[in-house]
Amino acid sequence: MTQLNRTHDPALRSWVESANAEGADFPIQNLPFCVFRRKGVDEPARCGVGIGDSILDIGLCTPLFDGAASQAAMSCREPSLNALMALGLDTASALRARLSELLSATHVQHRAALAEALLPITAADLVLPVRVGGFTDFFASVHHATNAGRLFRPDMPLLPNYKFVPIAYNGRASSVRVSGMPVHRPRGQIKVPSQAEPVYAPAQRLDYEVELGMYVGEGSMVGSPINVAHASRHIFGFSLLNDWSARDIQAWEYQPLGPFLAKSFATTVAPWVITAEALAPFRTAAMARASVDPQPLPYLHDVLDQREGGLQIQIDAHLRSAQMAARGLPAKQLSRSNASALYWTFAQMVAHHTSNGSSLDTGDLLGSGTISGEADDALGSLLEITRGGARPFELDTGEQRTFLCDGDEIVLTACCERPGYVRIGFGECRAMLMACTPEQD
Amino acid sequence: MTQLNRTHDPALRSWVESANAEGADFPIQNLPFCVFRRKGVDEPARCGVGIGDSILDIGLCTPLFDGAASQAAMSCREPSLNALMALGLDTASALRARLSELLSATHVQHRAALAEALLPITAADLVLPVRVGGFTDFFASVHHATNAGRLFRPDMPLLPNYKFVPIAYNGRASSVRVSGMPVHRPRGQIKVPSQAEPVYAPAQRLDYEVELGMYVGEGSMVGSPINVAHASRHIFGFSLLNDWSARDIQAWEYQPLGPFLAKSFATTVAPWVITAEALAPFRTAAMARASVDPQPLPYLHDVLDQREGGLQIQIDAHLRSAQMAARGLPAKQLSRSNASALYWTFAQMVAHHTSNGSSLDTGDLLGSGTISGEADDALGSLLEITRGGARPFELDTGEQRTFLCDGDEIVLTACCERPGYVRIGFGECRAMLMACTPEQD
Repeated sequence: MTQLNRTHDPALRSWVESANAEGADFPIQNLPFCVFRRKGVDEPARCGVGIGDSILDIGLCTPLFDGAASQAAMSCREPSLNALMALGLDTASALRARLSELLSATHVQHRAALAEALLPITAADLVLPVRVGGFTDFFASVHHATNAGRLFRPDMPLLPNYKFVPIAYNGRASSVRVSGMPVHRPRGQIKVPSQAEPVYAPAQRLDYEVELGMYVGEGSMVGSPINVAHASRHIFGFSLLNDWSARDIQAWEYQPLGPFLAKSFATTVAPWVITAEALAPFRTAAMARASVDPQPLPYLHDVLDQREGGLQIQIDAHLRSAQMAARGLPAKQLSRSNASALYWTFAQMVAHHTSNGSSLDTGDLLGSGTISGEADDALGSLLEITRGGARPFELDTGEQRTFLCDGDEIVLTACCERPGYVRIGFGECRAMLMACTPEQD
Repeated sequence: MTQLNRTHDPALRSWVESANAEGADFPIQNLPFCVFRRKGVDEPARCGVGIGDSILDIGLCTPLFDGAASQAAMSCREPSLNALMALGLDTASALRARLSELLSATHVQHRAALAEALLPITAADLVLPVRVGGFTDFFASVHHATNAGRLFRPDMPLLPNYKFVPIAYNGRASSVRVSGMPVHRPRGQIKVPSQAEPVYAPAQRLDYEVELGMYVGEGSMVGSPINVAHASRHIFGFSLLNDWSARDIQAWEYQPLGPFLAKSFATTVAPWVITAEALAPFRTAAMARASVDPQPLPYLHDVLDQREGGLQIQIDAHLRSAQMAARGLPAKQLSRSNASALYWTFAQMVAHHTSNGSSLDTGDLLGSGTISGEADDALGSLLEITRGGARPFELDTGEQRTFLCDGDEIVLTACCERPGYVRIGFGECRAMLMACTPEQD
């Protein structure tokens, strides 16, 4: 098991009392990064760290850090995490270690200065935390690949390459936006089987996808593939990610070059980046391969990665319709899946991504692909839950759903739990589907 | 026909004598943009304009411009064309008009100052001209789509969506590099039919693709699709583009999400951006659709675009092997194709790209896809020329080729010719294929 450091100590408590609450997403053991500005204030965004119900404005207390931690703290004055991420894991780790010390209940020095730099999360606008250069979306859940494949190819749900290749496609980086920003239903070419020709119309089969996003910290060089055994050096942290998908556009456009407009209208990420360091206690074995499955090719295989390259992250998806919101009804839980069921580890994705000599750069975002489990209540998209729209389900209002309706809000949440460790959470990845924007001029 | 302005006047000659030479790529009617620094000088790159065998360092003579042209000239001090492109077509046009005036043979003022700002192209390092945010590659040549499709699906070369959808996929923007930079043969997962399992090995079926790249000037807003009739407002200019492709990696990885590592190792673009304005005299009708072909859907249809949305650009591809170079033999011409044979116009690509509400941003690069004609000598890739490797051809050295060998150099050139107008050229898009980099650690 990866070495755990003091920041994982379950006995650690913070003088920021909300961080010690049962079920808090951001105890002192988490310290996720975000980028924010004060609500209603016209000011540059900067980096902060979540503690309980607050954000610490790190750039306001740089004198409290020294050495590498000081350099890291200075980088937090930038309007994205990229500068911090580019400094490398050790530097960010030094920052976290010092933050952990400063915020711990046993540390009485500097509290006034720190308290000055605390802002309630509710008083902040959280912006996109990372300037995303490249966005690649994988297809790492074998359950999702099988479920989705079955709808297109009942006789061969899983293609022959799946268990050899960590399949991925390039997404559209400029469409990545932060939680809370509404998503408009896209128009697109849609061809229904009963019609001879397609039409350009609002997508009817609008879906979400439960994913984890991984941000690349230190980049790599062109021509120097990252060895799977060293991939973790490049993994800064993780966020919840919702890969909005228009299934009807996708079905018509995706041959032979893959999904394009069906996905490029919006990808929502959570504002919180949970560091790989904070997640270390929740590492687990990579998904066990069936005995009939091929072993990963050597460039994708590392004993340690197989032993602890998986992540025990439980992810819930909820839907709240406009009617439910109007009536004050709680959101409906759509699924609970777990990242430990991914067929490919993030280290394998990194090794594969660079295996042709292309570089990964600081701020690149790698999505896991939809995270589905085997069980019926662990399906990470409506495509799977409703079997391609064939099995509608009902909301508490009596409304029926196969795919999303305007006004539906999708909320993803996630947490890690393990006996002997303090639970950590991922915050929310939330966005409402809005009606199409008016027709073009 | 689009209004032509004075900069197209065939009677215009330049006092830069090399610009008036028969067959010069960069007569005064062209004025393509580039980004350069002086060879061997450690200095920031900046924007210039090609005239004859020289580059005019625009930023050195900003006092010679006023109004919009002055603003445009100032933006040329930046290390990419993005700032200029973001100013909009009218501003760039004002700059070109004044450049045309200053460089014309009848203009005697300021010659000394201008001559001071001239640098021979051979004394410059040309760098990537545009900071590419997103790279999208289309598949707009119906001949290429048919030829390539035939190899995979003899019974259905062209998929049913092709004549409705301008098919495209997201490429990897960070892999776009400028002409002259070597390209290393990628490794990747390859599965040969005779073997049960794939191997990770150097790609054997290394190919190039003859393409045009189009750079987006003024961007668009999220939620505001660009009408096909207004698309030209967003089209800044064009470059030659070689979309390197590893066919063996592609064949194994591309289902179901499209090409990924088979393409992401390198895309070479020429250093010269030929403005849409310079190309105006060479506009032509969009490719005629067969009577059995569907009409473009309304969002892709514009009468004027059908009438003059095509481009008469003749593109040649040449190959020179290491042996040919050693013996001083001329490169072998592989093909001559023409952009007028694209099934989709660039305006249609722009309209389609934004049809789901996603934005296009200044500096986005849209590739045409391989430009092939119907004839055997108009095929824009080795995949097509050798029928998937089944028909080798011979070089003057007696060497045989199906796909590329290490040391092979691919050179793309292009020009526009039309009676009554001065020929303009695109410069070169050149890169040598090198051996794989050493194996990873």
